[in-house]
Formats: sequence, C-alpha cells, structure tokens
Amino acid sequence: MSNNTSPQALRSLIRSGEHSGNTSGFAAGHVQCNIVILPSAQANDFLRFCQLNPKPCPLIAMSNKPGDFSLPPLGNIDIRSDVPSYRVFRDGQLNEEVHDISSLWREDLVTFALGCSFSFEEALLADGLEVRNVTDGVNVPMYRTDIDCNPAGAFAGKMVVSMRPFAASDAIRAVQICTRFPAVHGAPIHLGDPALIGITDINQPDYGDAVTVNKGELPVFWACGVTPQVALEAAKLPFAITHSPGCMLVTDLRNSQLAIM
Amino acid sequence: MSNNTSPQALRSLIRSGEHSGNTSGFAAGHVQCNIVILPSAQANDFLRFCQLNPKPCPLIAMSNKPGDFSLPPLGNIDIRSDVPSYRVFRDGQLNEEVHDISSLWREDLVTFALGCSFSFEEALLADGLEVRNVTDGVNVPMYRTDIDCNPAGAFAGKMVVSMRPFAASDAIRAVQICTRFPAVHGAPIHLGDPALIGITDINQPDYGDAVTVNKGELPVFWACGVTPQVALEAAKLPFAITHSPGCMLVTDLRNSQLAIM
Repeated sequence: MSNNTSPQALRSLIRSGEHSGNTSGFAAGHVQCNIVILPSAQANDFLRFCQLNPKPCPLIAMSNKPGDFSLPPLGNIDIRSDVPSYRVFRDGQLNEEVHDISSLWREDLVTFALGCSFSFEEALLADGLEVRNVTDGVNVPMYRTDIDCNPAGAFAGKMVVSMRPFAASDAIRAVQICTRFPAVHGAPIHLGDPALIGITDINQPDYGDAVTVNKGELPVFWACGVTPQVALEAAKLPFAITHSPGCMLVTDLRNSQLAIM
Repeated sequence: MSNNTSPQALRSLIRSGEHSGNTSGFAAGHVQCNIVILPSAQANDFLRFCQLNPKPCPLIAMSNKPGDFSLPPLGNIDIRSDVPSYRVFRDGQLNEEVHDISSLWREDLVTFALGCSFSFEEALLADGLEVRNVTDGVNVPMYRTDIDCNPAGAFAGKMVVSMRPFAASDAIRAVQICTRFPAVHGAPIHLGDPALIGITDINQPDYGDAVTVNKGELPVFWACGVTPQVALEAAKLPFAITHSPGCMLVTDLRNSQLAIM
C-alpha cells in the first residue's frame, strides 16, 4: 500500500482488518476525519457544541438519522468497520479499543465527522512551507489553553490547540493558506507569546510531541480536534465511541474540495 | 467640506487652490494614491522597479504616454493641478514644494499612481479593528528595514515598512483582510520581533510618529509607499516630482473595487 492508495481501496483494507493503524500520509490528497459517535439523547447537544465552536469542531458530515451507519457525502462508508481503530467510552471512561464496532452498534447512534489538520498541513506543504512535526516525523504538539469553549448541554471545556513554528513571513503565508479551509480548523487562532493563551511551557505539550522552535520563529496555534474529545470526556456520557488518535476515517472528498476559494 | 465630499468635488477644490493640505479622511471610501512623476528617460526603469517590488510599490495606474497629464482609470484628472501639494526634486535634492505644477510640466513627463495604506486602514477599521495611529491621531510609524528591494536601473534601496500593533488574533484578522487588497500593499510582510528585519528601536521610527505597543500586542509590519520615494531620492535624478507626504491624489475608485475577492 502506498501514499497513492485510493480512499476506497484503503477503506476496503481497513474494513477487512488488513490495515488497523495510523492513517497519516495514506490516500494523499483526501480528507481524513475525526469521528465521534453518540447516542441520539446527547447528539443534539453535541451538534450545538460544534455549531458554537466551529474552529475546534468543524463539522463536515453527520448521520442522516440515528442508527444510520452510512455517510453518503464522504463516500461509500460503513462507519462500523471503516475506521482502523475505535475507542469505546463507558460512563465517561475509556473502556476498550477495538477495530470494529459492528457488535456494539445501536439504533440510536449518531455519527459526526469533523475536519482534521492533515488537510491543511497538506496545503501548507504543497505551498513549500516546512511543517516541523512532519519534518521531524513526530505527532504535532498540542496544548490545553485557558480559552473556554462555548458550552452546550454537558459539553464544555477549554480549547485545545496544535502548534507549528514558522518564521514570521511563513506564518503570514500560513494564515492566508489556512483561511481557505474553514472546514479543517481554518486560520490560526493565535501566534507569538504562548502565555497569552494560558500555555506555560511550550516544550511540555499536553498531547503529542514537543518540536523545536528555532530562534526567529513564532509558534503558531490552530484550534485542534482534540477539543471535542476533551469536551466529550468531561461530559462523562454513559456511552460514546471515537476514532483512536491518528486512526482517522479516510473519505472520498479531496482536500481541495474543502477550499472556500 | 466633510468626509463625505465626493472625490470630484474635492479635486475641484484642490484644483482651484481652495484645499492645499492633507487628504487623510477626506472623500471616505475612495482610493488615494502616492504620485511619482518622472522624465520618460527614467520611467521604464521605475516601472520595472514597481514590477519587481509590488508590495512596497503597488502600481494602480500610469500615464498612457509621456506628456499626458490625464489618468482616465482614476477619474477626470489633471495631474498638474489635482494634488494638494507637490515636491519638486532637482539633481536628487528637494528643491521646492508647490501647489500646482502646470508651469513645470514637460512633454516627456510620465505619471505613476501607487496604492496607499489609507485604503487598507479603512478596511481594518470597517472590520472593527483598532488602528493605533488613527486612534492616536498621529502619522503611522515607518522604519527603514534591512530588506533590499530588487533594483532596476538607478532605483534601489532598502524596503521601508509601516507598523501597526495588534493583539495576535487581530493580527491574524488583519492578514486576512489585507490579503484581499494587493493593490494597496497587501498582507503584512512581517510581524513580531522588529530586529529580524533590521529595526533596532521600535520607539524610534525613521518617518512618522511612534505609537504605543501594549503588553500582549505584536507589531505588524506592512511594505510602505515611502519605499519608492527613498529609491527615487537615491537615484539622484535630474528632475522628479512627487506628492507631499499626506497630500495624496484622491481618485474616483472605491477602495472596495481594489478587493480581489
């Protein structure tokens, strides 16, 4: 399997259990999504949470109705089997990690597919910018900020951000590029002094791996898809399923189709 | 005369000598231009200088042919009388400041009209951003950087930048807004540490007035229309005319017409 594997072929391998790991770099050019699956009792509040916090929670698609495991706008998808690895939460706690949720499926489950930074990283790289976590082959560093999300029902919490360092002129270019992609977190929400958004030590990310910020570079911060996961855990729902970190839903959508201009 | 004076009425007052000062804030919503008038012997090099340095020298219009004192794309203009105040340079030195250049007009003169930061400041203000030099009622601070312009003939020199301080989120918004206006300097060229572009003391601008940079704000730097004036002076031409600082050509173009999207 190469970077050029089609999303359909990749999902077929995932569905059959032949690929069960990270999707980073696979099916290049195609949108990969964060997945949240909730009982319908909590789905409306979560939908409202996404609507109120579009930068960390950019909703790309959701189920047509409870119990429907397809996502037609994203391809010929069976959400019960087409994600390489799932996390199952019970009573707010991570309960198990599985590669198929067919046996856990319920008629009241609603699926949400949210945009992911892989899409805008591809656009940055295509423009010739260096994305440090890609260069270093590590996970992007992520930090819990002191910025409150707008709450909806049980869903609330601080915004989590990802950080990529750039020289100022590249940071300006990154703002221009990412502005075109509101469906995958859009423009950065902050740059410069990390303390201004409640980050005390840039070398100690709360998630992912630290990367070097060279002299003359500014840390640039994007709203991050870990934000809804944190809100989900804080909500301590009886039952919820998400993708495992890095093991995303690979869709038929091209990243370029998300560009607003 | 009010901010809502039409550009045509304002130019009529300027032409008749009834208004001979600053144009800042007049004919709101309309493009004001920096003016450079050169003998045709140097005009091609200056045109090439603008083409090579589009951020500091965004060319909006120029004469159809040497000796032509009209600028049809910008309105019913007689460039000999429609700028409130002119600077006349002889042998590279500022020789006189006059309100009409009809008696100095020559059949070999070529006029260049360049975009000005008034246009993007209006767009920033319209979006609710605070523009510090406007708030403080002073000239924007401008600095000579260590960034070399691309030379063309005798025209060369360092880029001059203007600076406006913003909180990071407003700086990001300013990048988005100004990106729409490449004809009036476009997106900032730098933000953050002034030393990285050769500015040693942010409180000591080379031109204009210092403004306060509050705690938590980033200085944001735009390529500035003083750049071509510096290149012009360095070229030590036998004869050249520019507008006097702040005394611009007011055109019929609306600022919104310069937006690329």
